[in-house]
Amino acid sequence: MIDLYEAMSSLRAVRRLKSDPIDEDVLERVLQAAAWAPTGGNMQPFKIVVAQSDAVKAQIKSLYHEEWYKYIAPTRNGLEKLPAHARDGTKKMMRAGDYLAEHMELAPAILIFCFNPAMMAITDANLDRPSVVGGGSVYTAVQNVMLACRAEGLGCVLTTLLCLREKEVKAILGIPDEWGTCAHIPIGYPVLKGHGPITRRPLGKLTYRDQWGSHWS
Amino acid sequence: MIDLYEAMSSLRAVRRLKSDPIDEDVLERVLQAAAWAPTGGNMQPFKIVVAQSDAVKAQIKSLYHEEWYKYIAPTRNGLEKLPAHARDGTKKMMRAGDYLAEHMELAPAILIFCFNPAMMAITDANLDRPSVVGGGSVYTAVQNVMLACRAEGLGCVLTTLLCLREKEVKAILGIPDEWGTCAHIPIGYPVLKGHGPITRRPLGKLTYRDQWGSHWS
Repeated sequence: MIDLYEAMSSLRAVRRLKSDPIDEDVLERVLQAAAWAPTGGNMQPFKIVVAQSDAVKAQIKSLYHEEWYKYIAPTRNGLEKLPAHARDGTKKMMRAGDYLAEHMELAPAILIFCFNPAMMAITDANLDRPSVVGGGSVYTAVQNVMLACRAEGLGCVLTTLLCLREKEVKAILGIPDEWGTCAHIPIGYPVLKGHGPITRRPLGKLTYRDQWGSHWS
Repeated sequence: MIDLYEAMSSLRAVRRLKSDPIDEDVLERVLQAAAWAPTGGNMQPFKIVVAQSDAVKAQIKSLYHEEWYKYIAPTRNGLEKLPAHARDGTKKMMRAGDYLAEHMELAPAILIFCFNPAMMAITDANLDRPSVVGGGSVYTAVQNVMLACRAEGLGCVLTTLLCLREKEVKAILGIPDEWGTCAHIPIGYPVLKGHGPITRRPLGKLTYRDQWGSHWS
C-alpha cells in the first residue's frame, strides 16, 4: 500500500528495466488500475494489448529502435552546441533512451494502449488547432497504470513514438482498422534505483487565478 | 492520507457541488498533484487557470449551460425509446448533468486546463484517424488532479464540452492564441455522498495478451 501523494511525487520515467518476470497478480493489479479510470460517458473506449511473448516484443522493439534513433538524432548532433549546464542532463536522458531502445524486448511486458475514436465525443475535433480531447478517455487510464506500477515497485515509461509506425504495430498485434494506438509502455523491475525524486516546475509557473497571467499567490 | 488503489477505485464523477470554500492549502495540494504528472520530454506543456471569482464563473457556467442542453437533447428526447433497464441509469445521469449545468457557478473553483501544442511532439498528427497523443501530456495531470480531489474529499468531474466554445472561454480568461483548452473541471465539496463505488467493465473485457482477441486468462 502506498499513499497517493507519495506515488505521484516519485513517479519517474524508468527506462532501464530488468527481464525478471512480473507475477500474474501484480500485473492484474496494474491493469485493474487502468480499468478504474474515468472516461467520457464511462464508455471505456480503450483496450490494452499486453505484449509478453518474445516474438511479439522483438518486433515492437525493432520498430521502436528505428524511431528512437531517428527522433534523437538532431539532439545528439546538437549536443556540443548546448550550453555546458544543459549538456549533462541531455546526455543522461539520451543514454537512458538509448538503453530502452536497445533492450526494450527484455522488459517482461509492453502495454499497448488502443482506443476507438467512434466511442468518443471529441469536442475539439473541428477547431483550428491539434485535437487532444480524445486523449481524455485514455491517458487517465495510462496515468493510473503508471501510478500502479510505482506502487508495485515496477519501472515504466510512457512512449508514443510508435504511433509513427502505427500501421505496422497494428499488423503485429492484429488490431482492427477502427482502433488506434496511443501509448506503448514497457514495464518491469528497475535495473537502477527506479522511481524517486522528480524535477518539475514550481506550481506558480503552471497556475493562474481567474485570468491568464494573474500569478498564483 | 489515502491509499492509491482506494483513491482510484472510488473516484466518481461528482456533479453536485456545494459552494463551501476550499482552503488555500487544500487547493494547492490539488494543483501540486497536476504539477507532478509526467509529460512528454518533461515539457509540462500545460497551465491551469483557476476560476474563482463570481464574475468569471458565471460566464463559464453560462456557456456550459447552453452546450449541455444542446448535447443532452437527443438523449432526453430518446428516453422513452430506451429499454426500461437502461432508462433509470440514463435519467439519473441526466439529472446530475442538469444539476451541474444549472449550478456550475456555485462550485468554489473551476479548473480550466490549457495546453500549448507547440510544446508537444504529437506523433499521431499525420495519421488517418483523430489525433489524441497531445492529450498524453495533459490528461496525466488531469487524472492526478482528480485523484487529489478524491484524497481531499472534494468532488470533481472532467468536462470537455466547453471546447465547443473555446474561442469565448479563451476571451473570458485572457488565454493567448497559441494555447488551447482541454478540460474544465468544477471542484467543490459534494452535496450528496460524493465519491464511492464505481461501475466499470471487468478487466477481461479490456485486456488482451499478445494478440487482439486473445482473451486474458
